[in-house]
Amino acid sequence: MPEFLRLQTPADALAHLLDALPQDADLGEQSIPTQDSLGRVLAEDLRAPHALPPFPRSSVDGYAVRAPDTFGASASLPAYLSLAGEVPMGALTTLELTRGKAALVHTGGMVPAGADAVVMVEDTQVSRPGEIEILRPAAPGMNVLQVGEDVQPGETVLLRGSRLRAQEIGGLMALGFTRVRVVRPPLVGILSTGDEVVAPEADPLPGQVRDVNTYTLSAVVTQAGGEPVLYGILPDQRQALELAARQAHAACDVVLITAGSSVSARDITSEIIATLGPPGVLAHGVALKPGKPTILAVCSGKPVIGLPGNPVSALVVAGLFVAPLLRRMLGLRAPRLSPRVHARLTMNIPSEAGREDYVPVRVTGEEGSFDAEPVFGKSNLIFTLVRADGLVRVPTDANGLAAGELVEVLLF
Amino acid sequence: MPEFLRLQTPADALAHLLDALPQDADLGEQSIPTQDSLGRVLAEDLRAPHALPPFPRSSVDGYAVRAPDTFGASASLPAYLSLAGEVPMGALTTLELTRGKAALVHTGGMVPAGADAVVMVEDTQVSRPGEIEILRPAAPGMNVLQVGEDVQPGETVLLRGSRLRAQEIGGLMALGFTRVRVVRPPLVGILSTGDEVVAPEADPLPGQVRDVNTYTLSAVVTQAGGEPVLYGILPDQRQALELAARQAHAACDVVLITAGSSVSARDITSEIIATLGPPGVLAHGVALKPGKPTILAVCSGKPVIGLPGNPVSALVVAGLFVAPLLRRMLGLRAPRLSPRVHARLTMNIPSEAGREDYVPVRVTGEEGSFDAEPVFGKSNLIFTLVRADGLVRVPTDANGLAAGELVEVLLF
Repeated sequence: MPEFLRLQTPADALAHLLDALPQDADLGEQSIPTQDSLGRVLAEDLRAPHALPPFPRSSVDGYAVRAPDTFGASASLPAYLSLAGEVPMGALTTLELTRGKAALVHTGGMVPAGADAVVMVEDTQVSRPGEIEILRPAAPGMNVLQVGEDVQPGETVLLRGSRLRAQEIGGLMALGFTRVRVVRPPLVGILSTGDEVVAPEADPLPGQVRDVNTYTLSAVVTQAGGEPVLYGILPDQRQALELAARQAHAACDVVLITAGSSVSARDITSEIIATLGPPGVLAHGVALKPGKPTILAVCSGKPVIGLPGNPVSALVVAGLFVAPLLRRMLGLRAPRLSPRVHARLTMNIPSEAGREDYVPVRVTGEEGSFDAEPVFGKSNLIFTLVRADGLVRVPTDANGLAAGELVEVLLF
Repeated sequence: MPEFLRLQTPADALAHLLDALPQDADLGEQSIPTQDSLGRVLAEDLRAPHALPPFPRSSVDGYAVRAPDTFGASASLPAYLSLAGEVPMGALTTLELTRGKAALVHTGGMVPAGADAVVMVEDTQVSRPGEIEILRPAAPGMNVLQVGEDVQPGETVLLRGSRLRAQEIGGLMALGFTRVRVVRPPLVGILSTGDEVVAPEADPLPGQVRDVNTYTLSAVVTQAGGEPVLYGILPDQRQALELAARQAHAACDVVLITAGSSVSARDITSEIIATLGPPGVLAHGVALKPGKPTILAVCSGKPVIGLPGNPVSALVVAGLFVAPLLRRMLGLRAPRLSPRVHARLTMNIPSEAGREDYVPVRVTGEEGSFDAEPVFGKSNLIFTLVRADGLVRVPTDANGLAAGELVEVLLF
């Protein structure tokens, strides 16, 4: 426990990492078709070139009227209006309503000049051709979408740093932006080290294991909006590792090194990171389980992270440090609303005060009464995470969580 | 209100749609590199070809020992063991521990034959070269990852219908599955109708609006694991629309038609859907706001959905019906844990009993004490959703929600 107390909390360590990034860093921009921009980050503020809607639109099927013509109308004493015509869909109407007139209009159709309200067809009756009975009074503006009600011309509709979701894409199309400038995805170099690690396509000899971290980290990077660049598996040998780290540092915006699992391999990693430039290592070890041997650094303006070699720790650390780092580098505005569900813990989770624990859980049960069942497993066991839906966080100051407690599950 | 009471609830309508899908429908499979399989759905059960770990591994840096040799050891009365050697990383060790011997082993290294525990280096001392003092007794199995502790040979590790996340990709690589069979994404034909609708690249004339739904629906389809096929904008004209609907129905696995907004256009849509094959329309209108004019159908084994023409309704309906439909067609096993946050409502949300309402909200405030601020807007206004982070559901039996209530925000 005293050991953890000397280490930074994950939140502090992340803050130090982000604070050490150069303020003027800029990934640059790309212009892409709006249609292909789902999930990308907008690189410019966008202003509306015109109003939305661009003309007054009916929000119902009915009759456009001059509201005062309908005042006092009721089912027993309708207002009688004469039909001036029908507004065609998708075309300019030259109709102009004068007193005592009504025009048939469809949902989305233009409300003609002179009219200031639309009476729903259900509140009307046609007793004689060319004559409309209005059975309810209309207030001015009723069932009319006014020009600019959604967006005013010149209004800033999207800010630089917005993540483009379905609705942003729709909004861009509505305004005629068929191409859009987005932030270039950060290149993230991934180095896997360890004399015992072989490529997934290899048949491991006794004592060897296949590389897992390169691929789980690639997935996390991709999901966070980065572009993984794989540097493969490097032996726990200073020279080869240093060469690869230098190459990655020169070519990429971020470098991730999963350390070999032995103490000496971890030491080599931190020594090599220290040679990549100032200010260098900001945190060597974090009060976190799993993930204590994490190394956080910024070297000559580029973040370099040393992740623990075992797969579960590496994934937890990637979620806690790599994903928020990439969000910051992309300039994403909104704080992340990390998806979660509330669930009742089925078992005690022991922990130690002074460190933050992340425990994989499986979510079972029905919507509204979820259970969170801890999936205990040593942190080397990747299939522990395969069996889990998310992580439960045990705060630094807690000695664990009790069965029956309502907890937040941070979904993967 | 009585009108809504005659309509099916969204949950019932969805259940009817899913029940009417052919039981034996199968999208077929594709073999792809595991590295590219993030987010895809596994098409086969996978069994472990070998155990994980495949050999007994140390989970710490320390000394492999025979546990009985350490029984009774303490700092004041250490057990003295002679050093038999060091286990090399990534290689078969020929070391075999006999009584009174210890071997240096690194994290992840093979525990040599004869040893049944590893003592952490912190609990040892080297006083003379070749001699190790053990300061704490080791229980058999301590700090050893046993063969098969993560996965047993032949064990089914992943089931058909699993969504492949970072950890599944890692697990597959650990077992040497560098290619994987995944479900073919369903082709989803998207038809946009409306005489007033023009392409986003067009300069709309008065009375015209740009197509939004084709692109928002494409985004939802992509996110749900389907492949959008765009059929463009069709006039509200029976013959042209019927031809395009037939082509889409023949070529795709699902057809989405965003209806023109007028009553007659909606009627044409439902008539055309009825001609596409039995059983035909299952729900014409749903007790839902926005989204009442939704049409759900299965025609000759393929789902066909008519969505309301206005963009906000179309997006809500896509989330409630299209996304779960695609999940079912993909054979996804796990119930969707829809991401959400809990937040306190800042304003009353009025509603009517008898229908389910979905109200866009913006989430503000800090982690742990979020506020949900309703973004009111008419359902034609796409930028209403741009300003929102998610939806709050007002249940069918509620007359609204009160300011100050703790609500679940279903995140977009």
